Amino acid sequence: MTRIAVLGTGRIGRMHAENIAAHPRASLAGVYDIHAPAARDVAERLAAPQFDSVDAVLGSDQVDAVLIATSTPTHADLIEAAVAAGKAILCEKPIDLSLKRVNACAATIAGTRLPIMLGFVRRFDPGHAGVRRAIEAGRIGDLHQVAITSRDPGVAPDAYIEVSGGIFRDMTIHDFDMARFILGEEIAELTATGARLVDPALMARCDDYDTVSVLMKTATGKQAVISNSRRAVYGYDQRVEAFGSAGMAISDNQPIDQLRLYGGDFTDRAAPLKNFFIDRYADAFAAEIGAFVDAVEQGSPPAVGFEDGRQALILAEAAIRSVREGRTVKINEIG
Amino acid sequence: MTRIAVLGTGRIGRMHAENIAAHPRASLAGVYDIHAPAARDVAERLAAPQFDSVDAVLGSDQVDAVLIATSTPTHADLIEAAVAAGKAILCEKPIDLSLKRVNACAATIAGTRLPIMLGFVRRFDPGHAGVRRAIEAGRIGDLHQVAITSRDPGVAPDAYIEVSGGIFRDMTIHDFDMARFILGEEIAELTATGARLVDPALMARCDDYDTVSVLMKTATGKQAVISNSRRAVYGYDQRVEAFGSAGMAISDNQPIDQLRLYGGDFTDRAAPLKNFFIDRYADAFAAEIGAFVDAVEQGSPPAVGFEDGRQALILAEAAIRSVREGRTVKINEIG
Amino acid sequence: MTRIAVLGTGRIGRMHAENIAAHPRASLAGVYDIHAPAARDVAERLAAPQFDSVDAVLGSDQVDAVLIATSTPTHADLIEAAVAAGKAILCEKPIDLSLKRVNACAATIAGTRLPIMLGFVRRFDPGHAGVRRAIEAGRIGDLHQVAITSRDPGVAPDAYIEVSGGIFRDMTIHDFDMARFILGEEIAELTATGARLVDPALMARCDDYDTVSVLMKTATGKQAVISNSRRAVYGYDQRVEAFGSAGMAISDNQPIDQLRLYGGDFTDRAAPLKNFFIDRYADAFAAEIGAFVDAVEQGSPPAVGFEDGRQALILAEAAIRSVREGRTVKINEIG
Amino acid sequence: MTRIAVLGTGRIGRMHAENIAAHPRASLAGVYDIHAPAARDVAERLAAPQFDSVDAVLGSDQVDAVLIATSTPTHADLIEAAVAAGKAILCEKPIDLSLKRVNACAATIAGTRLPIMLGFVRRFDPGHAGVRRAIEAGRIGDLHQVAITSRDPGVAPDAYIEVSGGIFRDMTIHDFDMARFILGEEIAELTATGARLVDPALMARCDDYDTVSVLMKTATGKQAVISNSRRAVYGYDQRVEAFGSAGMAISDNQPIDQLRLYGGDFTDRAAPLKNFFIDRYADAFAAEIGAFVDAVEQGSPPAVGFEDGRQALILAEAAIRSVREGRTVKINEIG
Repeated sequence: MTRIAVLGTGRIGRMHAENIAAHPRASLAGVYDIHAPAARDVAERLAAPQFDSVDAVLGSDQVDAVLIATSTPTHADLIEAAVAAGKAILCEKPIDLSLKRVNACAATIAGTRLPIMLGFVRRFDPGHAGVRRAIEAGRIGDLHQVAITSRDPGVAPDAYIEVSGGIFRDMTIHDFDMARFILGEEIAELTATGARLVDPALMARCDDYDTVSVLMKTATGKQAVISNSRRAVYGYDQRVEAFGSAGMAISDNQPIDQLRLYGGDFTDRAAPLKNFFIDRYADAFAAEIGAFVDAVEQGSPPAVGFEDGRQALILAEAAIRSVREGRTVKINEIG
Repeated sequence: MTRIAVLGTGRIGRMHAENIAAHPRASLAGVYDIHAPAARDVAERLAAPQFDSVDAVLGSDQVDAVLIATSTPTHADLIEAAVAAGKAILCEKPIDLSLKRVNACAATIAGTRLPIMLGFVRRFDPGHAGVRRAIEAGRIGDLHQVAITSRDPGVAPDAYIEVSGGIFRDMTIHDFDMARFILGEEIAELTATGARLVDPALMARCDDYDTVSVLMKTATGKQAVISNSRRAVYGYDQRVEAFGSAGMAISDNQPIDQLRLYGGDFTDRAAPLKNFFIDRYADAFAAEIGAFVDAVEQGSPPAVGFEDGRQALILAEAAIRSVREGRTVKINEIG
Repeated sequence: MTRIAVLGTGRIGRMHAENIAAHPRASLAGVYDIHAPAARDVAERLAAPQFDSVDAVLGSDQVDAVLIATSTPTHADLIEAAVAAGKAILCEKPIDLSLKRVNACAATIAGTRLPIMLGFVRRFDPGHAGVRRAIEAGRIGDLHQVAITSRDPGVAPDAYIEVSGGIFRDMTIHDFDMARFILGEEIAELTATGARLVDPALMARCDDYDTVSVLMKTATGKQAVISNSRRAVYGYDQRVEAFGSAGMAISDNQPIDQLRLYGGDFTDRAAPLKNFFIDRYADAFAAEIGAFVDAVEQGSPPAVGFEDGRQALILAEAAIRSVREGRTVKINEIG
Repeated sequence: MTRIAVLGTGRIGRMHAENIAAHPRASLAGVYDIHAPAARDVAERLAAPQFDSVDAVLGSDQVDAVLIATSTPTHADLIEAAVAAGKAILCEKPIDLSLKRVNACAATIAGTRLPIMLGFVRRFDPGHAGVRRAIEAGRIGDLHQVAITSRDPGVAPDAYIEVSGGIFRDMTIHDFDMARFILGEEIAELTATGARLVDPALMARCDDYDTVSVLMKTATGKQAVISNSRRAVYGYDQRVEAFGSAGMAISDNQPIDQLRLYGGDFTDRAAPLKNFFIDRYADAFAAEIGAFVDAVEQGSPPAVGFEDGRQALILAEAAIRSVREGRTVKINEIG
């Protein structure tokens, strides 16, 4: 059994704690939250120990690994501390909003052989992962073009947007990782556009965008586009399309049920899409824990590593620069 | 070139005349209608001769074949006359509403080698024919179950219903033929139910039904169900499903266009189905002419013959008896 | 909290125990199985008490309700005992394979106000329930026709088939209940056909069928058809279609993921269907526990009652008689 | 009747001639081709006069309008001559491969009130036009993002590619027009990428690309992406997606039939897409003639005008510059 403690028991941390508890080869080694009652609630529900400090977690010999689900500004510090304590790590994205801090963290932990996994959960979605597997199995031949559509069901609260680091670091970062995952090679340059169409006042106040599109290409000429919006009224729009010389693979959306309605002026009308990322990616979150347990058990590099988190942030920085300067940005300008 | 004259230039006859004129190996040898102005209009539009009597058509050495699209009560007489005149025949269904008259006609024309084709146009639909081809190619293994859904977009005018011979002879007859076509073997027994749910007053007056379901089985145990309604508000519902030991083939519906709409409480909403049988089966009607031309050119038995028309009528008679007597009817009781 | 004990910890019982443990207003009051190690395993995993006899369960004041997931021949006895002990009941279908025994059980428990719920889980499937809700909301107008397709992914082991009571009592019984649920009124008569197409030797030995179709109608003329097969190679085929005067509602199948593949001679190819009933109906099983908890908390009649179980068995008996005698059977002949 | 003569009776010209002949308010006033036998064949099949020179067509008082389907280098000259002769014009795209020549042509014909329509046929596709209509009807709210996928089923012959003017002027030009049509406003800037992934040798020889992606935005921040490939093995991939504040509208692909196959490891597999643009856009080509006849009859500006052809070419020029210079190009740099 891999004994995993959860740091941070907000919405995501709680969900991870449940998945750990339900995993046949993992156990919930304990929970910690800066707000003790939140941790206590989870501890009681899942019959797991509650820790009263990060140090207690990292010092415990009953803990093999930590899942970091605390607020973003604490991630890099906790990674460094956990590495120092010899614990394997599964850290929610992003590592940090500052590439400089991420690079410093990388330097600090350089050489560790501990599994450090980044929580780009979408790689574990059965549909999205199926696209990658289809490519690897040669079912679409050589990959030529990728299209990623990723639209939230609604704008997050103002307080969240204000500290999010902007749409590229907060939301598109998932799609940058997905692009790298599907492409199977590094992006060489990108061009991004941003607009304030959903909530112009909030976006202006935060110097942010709610509607963005990104065009990327790799050194070998493969092309990828990302379409993001902070609000899709029909639900959480999450699609991946990979086009190749011998076919195409599409990971399609998930309506909340399989009901289809027909009426006087329409046919085949489906339900809205699953609205909440924890529902939409429920299978993926569970599979992510499984992949982390595999890595810890085998001492092997995790499916998504620290460097993947760093590369996605580099792409976000490139996109921000592209929008600011209104030009195509080569990725090797960043870093 | 196969020179085909069209008898009867109502809605269906006109459409057939256009398809004949457009076929590369057929020519429209002329048109005739008891109502001369109707024939004249078609003759002028398609630059084809107008005949002033059936005898003139059948006596012309410029006519190789006739397409019979006159009113139902004339079909059997015209078949007999055309056979006597040595013309190949494509006759709209049904041969006659009376099985006795059909049997008499069969006796009269017995031994002819002229191609006599029945207009069960749905056999030529790319989707429905694709189901049959998939079966023949072994793609679904041994056939076990067939489901045919066939619903009109709206009730025909009272005057039509009154002389239609009832839903089984008028509408279900297409599905009986489809069942035989897909099953590839004869039906041994059937049970039918009928109800008056769409227009109870009209149906009661005509001693007819607007909503019927039929359960059939063959000697080898294959099963087929038919669901009919005189009115589907979402359009002309035409589906065929064949289930077998190694898979399933479905011929699905055709919306009027490929537009899909998403809104606040729905996704993937399609347009209504094509509403008019001439639109829905446009490809099939054109292919039917092609199959007829093939049969005439090659002097070979047509894809759908006189006996197919007779067998479908026998099934309709069995269904009528089943509803009247509230019991399963063996097909060999009829005939 | 409603304290529910689980009797029988085979595959289904274990799954129910997990759902009970996970439900916010229910607790797992304990488990019992005639094979003690099976119960122990579940008890340990879910940190619940293990009982060493049915009497201990029924005698415990820590138990409000029992979920009966033991072998079929014990169901009726356990229902009678649980009622005598004042426990609410959620019993897996069927109540018994013998209608006589079911009727005796009904007589024994007559007058009880305890919630007694039957495990017709499909009523709780979001898609199937959505069809019923669409009807109740008037979205398809007056209901005219229902089509239920229900095909297992593979034939159950011989040992299971041999004691199953035959396909109508074992498998079609779910569809009979679904027909009643969707129709919203009682079935007046039915005609069934059965064939041995999947595993003829096994079926002959058991005097059973692996491929059946049923045609039903209600007193008001509504029609329903059921298509069953013991083996669909593409997965667990579970569809419900309701056609009405103002539209149609379809509960469609569930592929295992949302991947769509395109290649040189095909497009839009989806994954196989979910293969295992516990996966396919996972949401429904969880919702079923919720509905039972509601009934117990409120002391109200459950969504699916004892009489629903009896009526479905009556329809199965009618189907058996219909196949044996090759005729339409009126439901009031049975009972 | 609008009397339309067809100049150029290659594949497209012939198809237009048939559509004109079939249109109830148009007549085929004659055909001309530099290769007389090609014109004769069409003239005979459609019973229309054959002209022996362009001058004869333009000088005829039996001709109200000309449809220009000759080779691209002749288009601008023919437009000028037809305007001088007072004939309405429907001209296949492009006006010319040279923007300079297009601008000169615009200057020459400035002030004419004759209907001059450009053959951007896709605007008349029921699905694509449905997207635009959905936007105009407010069904998706304010438009935010557009995605156009347009992939040919196979690379055109080398000889065609060599004189095509390159993918942006030859193929993407349709998508530039579609972007303007759907967006309903002008594009302010674009970034294009091109790669040689399908036929690198041919593309290198022609200094051309076979795989391109384009990112565009308008002055108000609306975003559009285009994905093009010269070869999609699964058929002619033609999709348009419009995302807005209140929903989404998608014009989806057209398989060659409605057959769906299920097998041991797949479900819901559809046929390949229609492969040939004349089949895929058959309805659109017919509707285009209708729109032209409307414009001529009413003396009103056609649905797609000369300026639309010029603007699409400007976008193609901008894309070429963007790829050459590896940068975002403002559209007002071109012209």
